[in-house]
Amino acid sequence: MKQNRKGLLLVVSGPAGVGKGTIDTALIERNPTMKMSVSATTRKPRPGEIDGVHYFFKSEDEFVKMIERDEFLEYMHVFSTNYYGTPRAFVEEELELGHDVILEIDVMGAMKIRESYPDAVLVFIAPPSMSELKSRLIGRGTETIEAIEKRYEVAFGEMQYMDKYDYLIVNNLVDLAVRRMECIIEAEKCKVARSEALINRLLGGNSEL
Amino acid sequence: MKQNRKGLLLVVSGPAGVGKGTIDTALIERNPTMKMSVSATTRKPRPGEIDGVHYFFKSEDEFVKMIERDEFLEYMHVFSTNYYGTPRAFVEEELELGHDVILEIDVMGAMKIRESYPDAVLVFIAPPSMSELKSRLIGRGTETIEAIEKRYEVAFGEMQYMDKYDYLIVNNLVDLAVRRMECIIEAEKCKVARSEALINRLLGGNSEL
Repeated sequence: MKQNRKGLLLVVSGPAGVGKGTIDTALIERNPTMKMSVSATTRKPRPGEIDGVHYFFKSEDEFVKMIERDEFLEYMHVFSTNYYGTPRAFVEEELELGHDVILEIDVMGAMKIRESYPDAVLVFIAPPSMSELKSRLIGRGTETIEAIEKRYEVAFGEMQYMDKYDYLIVNNLVDLAVRRMECIIEAEKCKVARSEALINRLLGGNSEL
Repeated sequence: MKQNRKGLLLVVSGPAGVGKGTIDTALIERNPTMKMSVSATTRKPRPGEIDGVHYFFKSEDEFVKMIERDEFLEYMHVFSTNYYGTPRAFVEEELELGHDVILEIDVMGAMKIRESYPDAVLVFIAPPSMSELKSRLIGRGTETIEAIEKRYEVAFGEMQYMDKYDYLIVNNLVDLAVRRMECIIEAEKCKVARSEALINRLLGGNSEL
């Protein structure tokens, strides 16, 4: 039995290499009513990327019109070349259906979501240590040391935002991190602050007698 | 791996007949590191009650001395006959050991705990409906209708405090209620507000490199 019908918007951030994608995928697989938010972008699809699955691919003109119609929970213009944004409609429709929506987004986007949707729950996924994160970045073996150093600097910059989040999960064991995410969602749904309708029903219940 | 070493103080309230005792007992059985706080009282032991298990039985003189030494997280003087209180030492020692402590207490006591120990997490256990609670009270079959009416009035009065709690759990299935309690504890331990040491360690971690 669900105590609160409305879904939760779960904003998940964390540095590259921390494994947030793995955690989110596991969450979705284990919880069929959870949905991943799909971002919109003006960049061209890469090979294998499907419109509506990996991204909603938009022309700059379409994207700007969506901005004008306030159709994004948040958006950004990266290096004044490509736009990226979180379409409001998908998120709000799923939440109304009682589905929990996971939004994997960087720290800047997360801060914007906090403003535009205060009910959102912000979770930061951290590595067991910064040196562990560095070895994970190196471990990918796909990049030059300069690229890794650059990624690491960005990661360390993102880590400075940890204390702006609601919850912090250290990802040293994926299964444990996933279970913690599930508990955070369950606990948030039990919060009195989210239970106004339930409380009114229970107290109004006196008249039944 | 525990993210935060210190235990949580979980304050559990709810009207008589709601089944909070059953939930707390199940929690303790499933989680060996959780401890029930034992209250102190000046009332005489009933048959089968063991000192230090059901209550710490104290003389009024001993109890008043404990009050003077500020040895209670909260206490009350019921009908100016018997004293009841929560000894501070047991709770604080167990929390320091990293054990979670469950404190089953009425709404007045819970409000006092919130003042004396702001880190406490307050959970209210509610019945599926007030009429359901009434049938549970009647179901016990041990009391007169007057006694039941009286209990019900007290219960309804306690329900008015629901919105002063952090979490609300409707107890329609004990296993589900227990799982929600476990999730609340797990989620609270992931809160950024409780993770200062972890955050400092992670950010300080940069110097390792």
